[in-house]
Amino acid sequence: MTPPILYDFELSGNCYKVRVFASMINLGLVLQNVEVLKGETRTEEFARLNPWQQIPVLRDGDFVVQDSQAILTYPALKYTPQWIDTTPMGMGAIVEWLSYAAKEVSNGPQLSRLKFLDPHEDIDLVRAQAIGLKVLRLLDNSLASRDWLCLGRPTIADIAVYPYVGLCRQGKLPLDGYPHIHPWLA
Amino acid sequence: MTPPILYDFELSGNCYKVRVFASMINLGLVLQNVEVLKGETRTEEFARLNPWQQIPVLRDGDFVVQDSQAILTYPALKYTPQWIDTTPMGMGAIVEWLSYAAKEVSNGPQLSRLKFLDPHEDIDLVRAQAIGLKVLRLLDNSLASRDWLCLGRPTIADIAVYPYVGLCRQGKLPLDGYPHIHPWLA
Repeated sequence: MTPPILYDFELSGNCYKVRVFASMINLGLVLQNVEVLKGETRTEEFARLNPWQQIPVLRDGDFVVQDSQAILTYPALKYTPQWIDTTPMGMGAIVEWLSYAAKEVSNGPQLSRLKFLDPHEDIDLVRAQAIGLKVLRLLDNSLASRDWLCLGRPTIADIAVYPYVGLCRQGKLPLDGYPHIHPWLA
Repeated sequence: MTPPILYDFELSGNCYKVRVFASMINLGLVLQNVEVLKGETRTEEFARLNPWQQIPVLRDGDFVVQDSQAILTYPALKYTPQWIDTTPMGMGAIVEWLSYAAKEVSNGPQLSRLKFLDPHEDIDLVRAQAIGLKVLRLLDNSLASRDWLCLGRPTIADIAVYPYVGLCRQGKLPLDGYPHIHPWLA
């Protein structure tokens, strides 16, 4: 079996979440490095692979999927259904967190970090950090009464949310004062 | 059977997508109006229902789910599986578009419209409209070769993306020049 190809950039938390999940479920990946900071997602060739010109992208034979939440969904359903749940309530709960990862976690912790990695990025840092603080507070509240984000067990919801939370110090969002986030990250 | 309760606000495109999907699949809903502009999502009572203090929220018996993408997922799986797909490739493709609805469509067309509905909102209109233009261009390209966003048939991916695209004139994003978006909206 030819392993899937992950179009990858090491510094990206969205790529990291795919790599870490693949490692946890023993899924071999061929990593194809894309030098984002050198403009390699902005080429016509890359646009043919992914019109949104974003990483990560996963290619498995003829099937191509982009967006880190979707990329987690695909191998989870294919190889490790214990990491996902296709019941109406189970998938509803997981998609709730996948949307949260795509929107709030991206607009808050991810953009805050990106502004410090690349100060030329057109990012409203005050706004991103305000969203980041709200994400941390609500996440800490959620984890006060449970070990995992949903369904009482680890799922792709946890994998989707945690990288930019774990990296949020790089966006000058300290994790002190959020006692329930630490054991979950660990 | 007691119908699910939708915590709803008429002007919200995210609530609209849930109402329209429920109507398409003949799912009765009890609409509970939440006066967002009067601060009714910012009360402690509402925070107990949804800590993120956003609408829409769906309550079906003891099950509570927030986020419009997750709310579409739940009744689709429960009542109308033809609107969703739980195969690895099918769900991967759908989640790709759900994330797109949660992030790009929200950051672009949705925020542009909101700024014109409520000029006091702290929104960078130039940035939101730039994202909006990119969303429209890429969506038009995607729809040039197909009738539906994925899987060759209507799914919750279409329902998740279309309201803020259909409403984007209200964010001063004209739909002229996107010939493939019109038949899809219709």
